[in-house]
Amino acid sequence: MSNSISPIQNLKGFRDFLPSDARKRNFVISVFKKIFESYGFEPLETPALEYQSLLLGKYGKEADKLVYTFDDKGGRKVALRYDQTVPTARVLIQYQTQLGLPFKRYQIQPVWRADKPQKGRYREFLQCDPDIYGSTSPLADAEIISISSQVLKTLGFKQFQILLNDRSILFAIMDQAKIPQNEKLSIIQTLDKLDKKSKKEVIEELAKKGLSTDKIQMIFTAIDEAKPSDNLKKIIEYALELGVSKETLLFRPYLARGLDYYTGSIFELLIEGYDVGSVGGGGRYDKLIEQISGVSIPAVGIAFGFDRIIEAMDQFKLWPSKLQQITTLVTIFNQELVSTSINVTQKLRKANIASELYPDTSTKLDKQLKYADRKGFQYAIIIGPTEMKSSTVVLKNLNTKEQKTVRQNEIVKLLS
Amino acid sequence: MSNSISPIQNLKGFRDFLPSDARKRNFVISVFKKIFESYGFEPLETPALEYQSLLLGKYGKEADKLVYTFDDKGGRKVALRYDQTVPTARVLIQYQTQLGLPFKRYQIQPVWRADKPQKGRYREFLQCDPDIYGSTSPLADAEIISISSQVLKTLGFKQFQILLNDRSILFAIMDQAKIPQNEKLSIIQTLDKLDKKSKKEVIEELAKKGLSTDKIQMIFTAIDEAKPSDNLKKIIEYALELGVSKETLLFRPYLARGLDYYTGSIFELLIEGYDVGSVGGGGRYDKLIEQISGVSIPAVGIAFGFDRIIEAMDQFKLWPSKLQQITTLVTIFNQELVSTSINVTQKLRKANIASELYPDTSTKLDKQLKYADRKGFQYAIIIGPTEMKSSTVVLKNLNTKEQKTVRQNEIVKLLS
Repeated sequence: MSNSISPIQNLKGFRDFLPSDARKRNFVISVFKKIFESYGFEPLETPALEYQSLLLGKYGKEADKLVYTFDDKGGRKVALRYDQTVPTARVLIQYQTQLGLPFKRYQIQPVWRADKPQKGRYREFLQCDPDIYGSTSPLADAEIISISSQVLKTLGFKQFQILLNDRSILFAIMDQAKIPQNEKLSIIQTLDKLDKKSKKEVIEELAKKGLSTDKIQMIFTAIDEAKPSDNLKKIIEYALELGVSKETLLFRPYLARGLDYYTGSIFELLIEGYDVGSVGGGGRYDKLIEQISGVSIPAVGIAFGFDRIIEAMDQFKLWPSKLQQITTLVTIFNQELVSTSINVTQKLRKANIASELYPDTSTKLDKQLKYADRKGFQYAIIIGPTEMKSSTVVLKNLNTKEQKTVRQNEIVKLLS
Repeated sequence: MSNSISPIQNLKGFRDFLPSDARKRNFVISVFKKIFESYGFEPLETPALEYQSLLLGKYGKEADKLVYTFDDKGGRKVALRYDQTVPTARVLIQYQTQLGLPFKRYQIQPVWRADKPQKGRYREFLQCDPDIYGSTSPLADAEIISISSQVLKTLGFKQFQILLNDRSILFAIMDQAKIPQNEKLSIIQTLDKLDKKSKKEVIEELAKKGLSTDKIQMIFTAIDEAKPSDNLKKIIEYALELGVSKETLLFRPYLARGLDYYTGSIFELLIEGYDVGSVGGGGRYDKLIEQISGVSIPAVGIAFGFDRIIEAMDQFKLWPSKLQQITTLVTIFNQELVSTSINVTQKLRKANIASELYPDTSTKLDKQLKYADRKGFQYAIIIGPTEMKSSTVVLKNLNTKEQKTVRQNEIVKLLS
């Protein structure tokens, strides 16, 4: 017990969340949970550590390098959770009789990636994923779109878009433009940038990849003329019936999002005016669970970008004025008057009025008021000798700096 | 993307939480958070990974062996969170001007220990700790006792005890019994077992440690005659004023709980009839933050035994009848009637009645009802051709198996 902290810092790419940030996170998580559960998604938690053999070889070669791996004290090759889909695939197989299908689960847990840290990219971050397993119906896709819209609406975003595509449309465009089979994925990856880069930049990139001006023209004509597939039409129809507003849904025939993963619909969530990037993305991935586990289970889902959503809520000042239930500090005038302050605190707590009792009996009042201010409390209650004798308290509004004397038995009513 | 899962199992000592368990955990966490925050404790989160140099040498030699350590891809020596006190000590130093003192924080995060797994002992488990930093006042100790009582009461436990002691009392007993300095800690460790083992067993253990019958007699006399210290008296006085019931508080002069850690008060939470062990423990540790960080900050707090509390809630059947907000599945009669079912779902959701729409359009009704049953829903709504024509639904109570026909515009009122 002798070593002092050295270094007094956290690892690069890892974050502490002090109360003001932690409260924001808790707020968003509580909205997620409430909405996910109200749609029938059930909570699932898996361990932070898994066998390496479960995780490696599932995310692709480049991603494998980012998995935190090590040998545990028993020589087992273990790895930190890299995403929530692969552990869920394990759970689906391991408990299949118990869980049954369809299975709608949500998972909100941190994942770890040994990626190069940069603005907005961390080595530890929260993933928030509702997914539906065991249904191929476009109704399942539509429910995922509906829940995405509901989440963004409930958080307070006024203008947002849900970009939609179907994998088959992208390949049809490639065929129309007569792109050779082995070049399709590369071209699609460039087209996917049309929402982030200018058309000019995308054209340049396509030219660099060896496409003739003619081919490029053919591709853009095909994009302009592309229509939703029957599958996507059905998804959109159901989504509209589920209350998603028409202006929110935008067909984007060039949208790809990690194409090797998706087998049908592809979604991306954009918030108007928030320019960092999409705040969520997902789609249908009917083959992935089979690739991971050997058992064929169709799936559709979305992953919300938790950090970006918090950033966007900051930008649009969408936080509720009261991110904490507690508004009142009961101060302690001096050693002799501790019991009086305790009694008032008790009265408030009994009436379910969240209130803190200053945790020290020998601190100057001034410092106690500063403490309440720092914690963002609205009120401080002061009970000096005069107040004690007259069974009153001084109620100080920390925002307006106004204070008034109130009878002790009226304080509950006043703060309720 | 070709490797199938092998092995399809989690690591020993690690657990999956399927929905029914995850819901219980979420419920207890939500009660913790609500009460902690209503007392003015603020949320804090720290990363799962820290520099090894922060964690090692802080918990003692034996504990150091249980810390999960490894070299990350950049060659940094890193370690998984082992407890929440050491990371909080780092935070207190790193952000001291920002946070100020006193600082009341709670932390609810998993920790990892490479311990031998056995019944009730896991390698990954949740810690739930509210602590007060920066106050030496017995009022702070009393608030921790008050919050402990509030948590157990709110969770529904009727009969529980908070065992209390003061470190100074234990040493006074050692002095009274004339135990040599270098034997004190070992004897205290044995006495600490008086709540778990019989007096006879403890006497045998003391004899084995070389104590004469006389000395043992002296110790038990000293224990019988021991009285709370002035500090403990003050803590008890404040705790009673804070509404903790007198029968709950039990002075236990032999209570030690990892004595090298505590400098004053020592607490332990017991639930009557739950025999596995204490469901929480804590006390004052005014030197620990200095030992860890070099900066002297007094502290008092408690750690709730999350897994044991859940086990005890199981034993006493304390779970609320509705651990999920959702009660209703809207089934889909056939492909032609999908829109009707969507519309009814939308009606319910708009009225804030959580309801799931069965996520597939080609599943037999029978299977849909079984699905609702498995998820613990109370109602299933069925809309066949007859119902559609008459703008009604069949509302089936899945518990009683009763069903009745209800007009579509009345279903909201009925389920509100």
